Amino acid sequence: MPTAAHRPADPFDALVSERARRSNTSAIREILKITESPDVISFAGGLPAAEVFPLDEVREATDRVLRERGATALQYSTTEGHRPLREWIAGRDGIPVENVQIVTGSQQSLDLLARVLLDDGDIVLVETPTYLGALQAFAPFGPRYVQVPTDEHGIDMDALDQILAEHPAKVLYTVPNFQNPTGRTMSLERRRHLVEATARHGVLVIEDDPYGEIRFLGEPLPSLYSLALDHAEGDADRCNVVYCASFSKTLAPGLRDGWLQAPTSIMGRVVAAKQAADLHTPTLNQMIIAELVDDVLPRQVERIRTLYGDRAAHMISAIERFLPAEVQHTTPEGGMFLWLTLPDHVDTTAMLAAAVARHVAYVPGPPFYALGGGAHTMRLSFSSADFGQIDRGMAALGDTIREWAGAGEKPL
Amino acid sequence: MPTAAHRPADPFDALVSERARRSNTSAIREILKITESPDVISFAGGLPAAEVFPLDEVREATDRVLRERGATALQYSTTEGHRPLREWIAGRDGIPVENVQIVTGSQQSLDLLARVLLDDGDIVLVETPTYLGALQAFAPFGPRYVQVPTDEHGIDMDALDQILAEHPAKVLYTVPNFQNPTGRTMSLERRRHLVEATARHGVLVIEDDPYGEIRFLGEPLPSLYSLALDHAEGDADRCNVVYCASFSKTLAPGLRDGWLQAPTSIMGRVVAAKQAADLHTPTLNQMIIAELVDDVLPRQVERIRTLYGDRAAHMISAIERFLPAEVQHTTPEGGMFLWLTLPDHVDTTAMLAAAVARHVAYVPGPPFYALGGGAHTMRLSFSSADFGQIDRGMAALGDTIREWAGAGEKPL
Repeated sequence: MPTAAHRPADPFDALVSERARRSNTSAIREILKITESPDVISFAGGLPAAEVFPLDEVREATDRVLRERGATALQYSTTEGHRPLREWIAGRDGIPVENVQIVTGSQQSLDLLARVLLDDGDIVLVETPTYLGALQAFAPFGPRYVQVPTDEHGIDMDALDQILAEHPAKVLYTVPNFQNPTGRTMSLERRRHLVEATARHGVLVIEDDPYGEIRFLGEPLPSLYSLALDHAEGDADRCNVVYCASFSKTLAPGLRDGWLQAPTSIMGRVVAAKQAADLHTPTLNQMIIAELVDDVLPRQVERIRTLYGDRAAHMISAIERFLPAEVQHTTPEGGMFLWLTLPDHVDTTAMLAAAVARHVAYVPGPPFYALGGGAHTMRLSFSSADFGQIDRGMAALGDTIREWAGAGEKPL
Repeated sequence: MPTAAHRPADPFDALVSERARRSNTSAIREILKITESPDVISFAGGLPAAEVFPLDEVREATDRVLRERGATALQYSTTEGHRPLREWIAGRDGIPVENVQIVTGSQQSLDLLARVLLDDGDIVLVETPTYLGALQAFAPFGPRYVQVPTDEHGIDMDALDQILAEHPAKVLYTVPNFQNPTGRTMSLERRRHLVEATARHGVLVIEDDPYGEIRFLGEPLPSLYSLALDHAEGDADRCNVVYCASFSKTLAPGLRDGWLQAPTSIMGRVVAAKQAADLHTPTLNQMIIAELVDDVLPRQVERIRTLYGDRAAHMISAIERFLPAEVQHTTPEGGMFLWLTLPDHVDTTAMLAAAVARHVAYVPGPPFYALGGGAHTMRLSFSSADFGQIDRGMAALGDTIREWAGAGEKPL
């Protein structure tokens, strides 16, 4: 075998498609690899708390499915998904089962929607900042992003109205509940305005709602989907919101089961794309989840709300104790994330190595901005760290910020 | 809610991407829906025999995984896949684990490769006929197909040489073992020639090998991958074959676990595309399969070889007993499919409804041709029908053909 020195670099690189060259996930992947070290307290990953996974319940459900309907559970099944699970989902909003598609984790919803909707140069409106997984899903298909300004109540509606008037947008992507990365929630008044304004402009809204069930403060708000369904007089085929959700945050991410709700005119395209992408979501996994949705899921949601609510409160208290007073934080009413804004001169990307040297990790803000920005911001996850880890990690982060900000170092 | 009559047709159709408009799977989907009726004997689907699924073994493995490593099994995991499973796969060909990616069923390998390799107009060489699932995966990305002629030993090498000389091809896609749809196997001599010729022309070969283990006649042949690895002096990063395989046909399709082997220069792009597509393949499913590969998998392969070998022999005998003598069939040495060539004037697409009326179903040949053809051909699957069903189905197919051919009916 020739040694690396004698080997031409990337012999097949010339074969790579233009689409693949637009995808660059290496920065974040490298960051997450650093944070996998066991002696690093990581506020970086978006991992659900594994200690409350319903292990016994999944084990019992799996055993039952394999004993009673094993041949079905291990066989090929339909692209649309396991019908009893689709029916349960359809029942939540009272829509026909034909408007529900099961996907292999919610990320696949974003990928399938990008494939069936986006041509090169199509205008996609995104929040500032927005979920980086959506940017990864959309980027290969060449959209033109317009960043919509946000504040503590979500998208700024005056700015949205102006953008809708100026740009022939095709899609608006939003995480209205406990947004990833900021933890912010869109107010009811803004939800109503957004649905009305996008419907009027013929813009399709992709509502990404993986965290909606995990509300630990305040009152639940109607989804954009349900408001748009009302706006379309209950006709799911005229509803201009596509709703994406998941069992990853409420049951278990390792099962990779999510769903989307869409008008049938879009769903037909989604089904064809899904068939080309992976034929169907694993049958066994769908049947396990169908066993859990009635009893186990609501109990899990209660456990998770309490646990994450306590951890969020503890993290906010630790921020106020350990971080410099100039650091601003959001106060999420649910979900898994909060957002820090540091003094302007603190470059969180450059500072990450110093934080990891002190055994604490976060995700720097810039990858969450479609068009750049956020150099002095960071995302913290409070879902998977216990109180002691939160205290120790935040103390280390405070030391890092003070040292870094104090030294006045510039980005590397 | 407005009635359908008052509703505008496809209100969101204008939003659909050009890419999605290239995908049209409805013909086959409609056919397969017809054949789902329980009183139809279906030789159409490519379903493994559910009666030999290793239900107890999967149940025991799942129980063990959830008891011992449940928190890991239900948590997010790496995009590349469960390392012990990747190591087992890498060991088959003695390659580094970095050259192995786990996918959500083998269809996903085709989709990911299409995404990272194909730009509009790139030339893809395909067999005549070829696997329709590959055409579905490639089509959205706009390749230009060149059909390579085949005979009973696979691709015609004189024709391939000429095509390689005339066309600047990027990719050649082939199913060398027990091809879907024809059941044919590429000879060793041709495998060697193909590897040498494609390497010389800088063409990447996608070797799709879901059935390779299911050989019930003749001697095993080396994969194109292993020949190309030799040709590259054992350097997996210079090997010009990407190998796609699956546990769907040997363990259980409902788990949706497959893999691909590729040079790291391509694999880096595949990992980025996979991360955008579905983050990772379900953790639980990969851990179940890792429990089964050492002991259960070889036993299953033996059971399946015997069962499918018996069924293939029985189907060939039934073809010779029940079908008109002019009908030609292939004689597969493994896999799940054989191929019928009928008299030229019998249009198998038009005849399908007549066959279903006699309670038997098949897949007409044309969807397996990238550029059209095969109107008088059909694919039959022998994997999931027992001897009695084969006899009754083939008698019904014989009656259908005699009636149809005799009446001289033209395609509808």
